[in-house]
Amino acid sequence: MLPGRDIISMMDLSREGIEEVVDLAGELEDERSGRLEGKLVALLFYEPSTRTRLSFEAASKMLGAETISIDSKEASSMAKGETLADTVRVVEGYCDLIVLRHPAEGSARMAAEFSGVPLINAGDGSNEHPTQTLLDLYTIWKWRGGLDGLTVTVAGDLRYGRTVHSLARALALFEDVTLTTVSPDNLRLPEDLVGQLDGLEVREGDDLEGAVESAEVLYLTRIQRERFADPEEYRKVAGSYRVMPELLEGRDLVLMHPLPRVDEISPEVDDMPQGRYFEQSANGVAVRKALLSLLLEDGDG
Amino acid sequence: MLPGRDIISMMDLSREGIEEVVDLAGELEDERSGRLEGKLVALLFYEPSTRTRLSFEAASKMLGAETISIDSKEASSMAKGETLADTVRVVEGYCDLIVLRHPAEGSARMAAEFSGVPLINAGDGSNEHPTQTLLDLYTIWKWRGGLDGLTVTVAGDLRYGRTVHSLARALALFEDVTLTTVSPDNLRLPEDLVGQLDGLEVREGDDLEGAVESAEVLYLTRIQRERFADPEEYRKVAGSYRVMPELLEGRDLVLMHPLPRVDEISPEVDDMPQGRYFEQSANGVAVRKALLSLLLEDGDG
Amino acid sequence: MLPGRDIISMMDLSREGIEEVVDLAGELEDERSGRLEGKLVALLFYEPSTRTRLSFEAASKMLGAETISIDSKEASSMAKGETLADTVRVVEGYCDLIVLRHPAEGSARMAAEFSGVPLINAGDGSNEHPTQTLLDLYTIWKWRGGLDGLTVTVAGDLRYGRTVHSLARALALFEDVTLTTVSPDNLRLPEDLVGQLDGLEVREGDDLEGAVESAEVLYLTRIQRERFADPEEYRKVAGSYRVMPELLEGRDLVLMHPLPRVDEISPEVDDMPQGRYFEQSANGVAVRKALLSLLLEDGDG
Repeated sequence: MLPGRDIISMMDLSREGIEEVVDLAGELEDERSGRLEGKLVALLFYEPSTRTRLSFEAASKMLGAETISIDSKEASSMAKGETLADTVRVVEGYCDLIVLRHPAEGSARMAAEFSGVPLINAGDGSNEHPTQTLLDLYTIWKWRGGLDGLTVTVAGDLRYGRTVHSLARALALFEDVTLTTVSPDNLRLPEDLVGQLDGLEVREGDDLEGAVESAEVLYLTRIQRERFADPEEYRKVAGSYRVMPELLEGRDLVLMHPLPRVDEISPEVDDMPQGRYFEQSANGVAVRKALLSLLLEDGDG
Repeated sequence: MLPGRDIISMMDLSREGIEEVVDLAGELEDERSGRLEGKLVALLFYEPSTRTRLSFEAASKMLGAETISIDSKEASSMAKGETLADTVRVVEGYCDLIVLRHPAEGSARMAAEFSGVPLINAGDGSNEHPTQTLLDLYTIWKWRGGLDGLTVTVAGDLRYGRTVHSLARALALFEDVTLTTVSPDNLRLPEDLVGQLDGLEVREGDDLEGAVESAEVLYLTRIQRERFADPEEYRKVAGSYRVMPELLEGRDLVLMHPLPRVDEISPEVDDMPQGRYFEQSANGVAVRKALLSLLLEDGDG
Repeated sequence: MLPGRDIISMMDLSREGIEEVVDLAGELEDERSGRLEGKLVALLFYEPSTRTRLSFEAASKMLGAETISIDSKEASSMAKGETLADTVRVVEGYCDLIVLRHPAEGSARMAAEFSGVPLINAGDGSNEHPTQTLLDLYTIWKWRGGLDGLTVTVAGDLRYGRTVHSLARALALFEDVTLTTVSPDNLRLPEDLVGQLDGLEVREGDDLEGAVESAEVLYLTRIQRERFADPEEYRKVAGSYRVMPELLEGRDLVLMHPLPRVDEISPEVDDMPQGRYFEQSANGVAVRKALLSLLLEDGDG
């Protein structure tokens, strides 16, 4: 069901492909085994992304695979001496699968063409980070038992966040999903993206409080100071998007966040049953276990 | 016998707890096995400490566990984006045990409160470094078969060295231990610490030569240049604390040092039977094997 | 057949020693097993060398051994606190074999004297890098089934490249090998080296095209800009050593290069059957598997 032997973009994945990953993630979540014993995963990170790297390492090692890592300092030093294509052709000689993080849009697709082993995109600039989206989908799937009929509110910076764009596109593959958006005026979901979300009911909400009324999931992203010319304006906006316990109290709703958070979630929310962002983060291991298994077990997805 | 599922401070450990660790270290010293297979240890180091990190990694891998590491550069970059508490809650989702090194006093205790998995303090600033003390105790125990009745001389900088303070406190839990101290006047053992060492006979010695007469163990620590305003004064003092072969020749005494040493031990001492600091360093692996086993095998110490 | 428990210099290796390594590399090339299970390899790199490090890590892990690594930043920080001899004596307490990369000529030999475990030189400055030479020999051996009777052309910077010097010395141990050299006048093979190559027929060639006529192997190395005072001169020379598809088309010849390459090989050559430099790089894993097995399996080569 996967689009091939590589995972480059959510846009390559069908509903069936997503379901295959999510189902297998559920099976493997608690597994510690030798099912990938003898396999070697290379983590080639041209920019630091500690959480993503650790999560792939943990997933590999929990299934008996081993890892070799090129960190961002080494990678940039290799980049001076040779092209990404050459580095990939050297590294594929040492391993069975490459996980690539690179700041340039499109780099993962290009690298996959040169690689003789499967390649997973762990973020190519502002373009795609499909394993983040898959872990978001898995997190929701795990709580609800499926994605059809979901009512989700996304809030914060909806303009620049690839996380939200990718999630919205993936949810459009499921049935009867309602997406409510809440954002400052200058950080709304891009119109051309909204135009592509056939099958998704998109509602632009007014305020956070109104939008959570009917939501099963509130997905919050950080609003960055540098998006605003006027610091006073930033402070006002950021304040109105801060989640306090009162917003969630008594609601049958879960709060997600891609982390790290700064001060957009009050620490008191951490201990509420609605605050599930650390569980969401931990789900990244299960999803990466599933992807590694699908790509490594037959040598072909 | 351990104080709980975490190892934060030697002050939490009873005589029985120490004996449990030391006994198990003796059993596991030569072991290479799969007894911790499937377990994942996260090494979260906010400041570099290569020896400590390597020793924990070696201990994990010799028993079949795997490790994931966040080095000081990555950790400080995470520290800009989120609190230590959040980092710990993310990392615990990837592993079965956290080893934490952090420059702030008290950070390990705080982190353990947020962690859902056991946590070992690998040094929290000038406060505590319990696994160093346990390896010192194991080293002595291994040579003598026990710690009761020990006669030990500690020499060098006794004022600022957490190593010596922690060792002295731990030895006070045993019977009939005599501790002789030899130090420059401005680097004496703090008086309030001496006041806490009930059960330990503390003798302030005059000179190194006199103090080793009756000692079974000479524990030397480095005297740092920056403790002295007058460089001439430093040279004089450092010279009188340098261990030359003549000091040890023919004596039934072992010389310990936490390493690295600069020039406080003459290289000729390395080949003498009394020079045991490299063996002491290697004992760190055995002690860490024991701690990892105690905390990981039942999921609870 | 190996010279002892360490691999320091190609000059220590006999023809029989080389054959033993190459034969075993052939056997182990595709092996994924637990034959080195329970063994721990320490990678102590005082300068970065990502490809060499990864290749040793991959070799270790494909045979079930584990690794611990000290990167160049950590190593240089240890170097401030203690001597290389002390670091080696600490690290040997944590592992079963040390792989050392150090910028100082002779450092590997010295370190091996202090190490209680086998040590492999992974490059000591401009002096020796024996595992690179062994992978070059293995690559040729694999294609031809042996090294006797070989006709090889080496081209590029023959004066400063330790790779070519070491390869020439090793080939002199075999029978009827003809070595043709092609280089700019200021970068010729050193005369004292040529004097040492008894048993090797050395021919100084005129131009690259003429020299490849009769060669089975063309071994190319990079010509560095900084070897020329006049940039115009460099451009002219570099241009005449660039390998274009026409040079190789239709010839029964393989092109080797130690990598990274900059622009001395046209990218179109990558897809020609003659371009074998990425395969050569991948062969490094097989050779390192063989060395680790020879040194670790009996605890003694």
